Amino acid sequence: MRRFIHLVSATLMYRTLQRSFQLTRHLRPQLQTRRLTILPQMASHSLYEDSTPAEVKNAKGLHLITMNTPNGQKVQIMLEELKEIYGTEWTKTMINIMTNEQKKDWFLRLDPNGRIPVLVDNTQDPPFPVMETSAELLYLLKFADKKDVFGFTDELERNEALQWLFFWHGSGAPYQGQVNHFAKFAKEKIPYAIERFKNETLRVFGVLEIRLSGKYTGEPRDYLAGKGKGKYSIADIGTWPWVKGWDFNFSKEDMEPFPHLLKWIDRIAERPAVQRGIGDEYKQ
Amino acid sequence: MRRFIHLVSATLMYRTLQRSFQLTRHLRPQLQTRRLTILPQMASHSLYEDSTPAEVKNAKGLHLITMNTPNGQKVQIMLEELKEIYGTEWTKTMINIMTNEQKKDWFLRLDPNGRIPVLVDNTQDPPFPVMETSAELLYLLKFADKKDVFGFTDELERNEALQWLFFWHGSGAPYQGQVNHFAKFAKEKIPYAIERFKNETLRVFGVLEIRLSGKYTGEPRDYLAGKGKGKYSIADIGTWPWVKGWDFNFSKEDMEPFPHLLKWIDRIAERPAVQRGIGDEYKQ
Repeated sequence: MRRFIHLVSATLMYRTLQRSFQLTRHLRPQLQTRRLTILPQMASHSLYEDSTPAEVKNAKGLHLITMNTPNGQKVQIMLEELKEIYGTEWTKTMINIMTNEQKKDWFLRLDPNGRIPVLVDNTQDPPFPVMETSAELLYLLKFADKKDVFGFTDELERNEALQWLFFWHGSGAPYQGQVNHFAKFAKEKIPYAIERFKNETLRVFGVLEIRLSGKYTGEPRDYLAGKGKGKYSIADIGTWPWVKGWDFNFSKEDMEPFPHLLKWIDRIAERPAVQRGIGDEYKQ
Repeated sequence: MRRFIHLVSATLMYRTLQRSFQLTRHLRPQLQTRRLTILPQMASHSLYEDSTPAEVKNAKGLHLITMNTPNGQKVQIMLEELKEIYGTEWTKTMINIMTNEQKKDWFLRLDPNGRIPVLVDNTQDPPFPVMETSAELLYLLKFADKKDVFGFTDELERNEALQWLFFWHGSGAPYQGQVNHFAKFAKEKIPYAIERFKNETLRVFGVLEIRLSGKYTGEPRDYLAGKGKGKYSIADIGTWPWVKGWDFNFSKEDMEPFPHLLKWIDRIAERPAVQRGIGDEYKQ
């Protein structure tokens, strides 16, 4: 199972890399014509336009536009978890970011940053779009997890979950993404940049290890946020899909200093909803 | 005034750069000995230890450990804004991150990521530490802004503020930080890396311009989140301290495509609390 997950994540990471190169390559013409594209030609001001896929426009409720990358998997897993508890329903559009579909106008109306996944909620009036994976997890927590099964009711625990969500969103994912780019995909191999981002990624793995090992509290924990050993929550869901792909860039030896983190990866990998959230249903 | 702010931000940016180099340099020995440092030697398990500065341990209420960098300024500004509305009080410890004070054990107990600013609330029992700037803004919003003056009561507007907070935290600040590193501070000048991160930073400035210009809504806005023209909120407070320092790496010509963003910078720069939050009180 573990080997299978690694295989899946390696494939996904490779796609992510391809994607980051695609984005950079795409950037040059875009930058040159930015003035042109940003000065508004306001034909239509609604959330959807003619070229928006019908399945997005006509979705009855929650609709996820995604691809099976670590970022896509965060929200896919959350939805699969909610389905188990509440029977939550949603529809989805799988897009291929290699085609830069996410840089087209119909997509930018939903997320001007042009990144998957995007969540739209057509039960709101007008329909409500949510960009940024962590904000999507928090949206689902608020609107689809009435019992806070994947969050907390205590305000301090809630804030703790936010701290770890922001930690990975701002310090973890960006470094790991740059390792992917510089170590694997960039045609020019730049030792300085590779070393810089590998070191930073190992450093943030070390931060998670400090947390999970209980170095400063004396009490190891099972999950990132919550009292005592913690509770599986959006903080873990926002972090796991990236960290589980460590073997794309790092060796077992590199990971030896992080025994609690490795156990946390396995613990979460066992969840059926997690397996579904990264599974066949989302493969293209 | 604008020139003054630019001067201040240039100075701060330079310090941030120095810091990022310091961190990288510091990393190598740290990585080699990680195994040693992470395996716990649990002498004390409380939040504070003998070497924690007395002013942190003995603070009566909110205490901010900060330095006048863009990240420090986010929380400094929020506190200054709250003071105007509610008379909020706090104490502070200014540290010099060039000395790597933030990598010492007493600091890592509060924030295992070793980054300023950190907020501690000694009115909680036990005292509660908050790491990650955006989580600090949300903590202050919850506990010190009872009327949601800098947030929203409507759940959709709340989520909108979270989207922009995460956008800058995960897509904005990390790119702008890497531009600082590669373009200004790294001894080795690597054109590929400089171009990559400059392009990405201009791209995210473009995302803010799309939002503020109302490209897809037909209605320009004054602030990032909220209905209509928006309302000054934590989304702006989390973004402004970085973006206002654009002239450290970019020319006026580079910024021409972003007229609404430049007006937004000036609009926020006029606020007295913002001026205090980046002002003399926080200089070392």
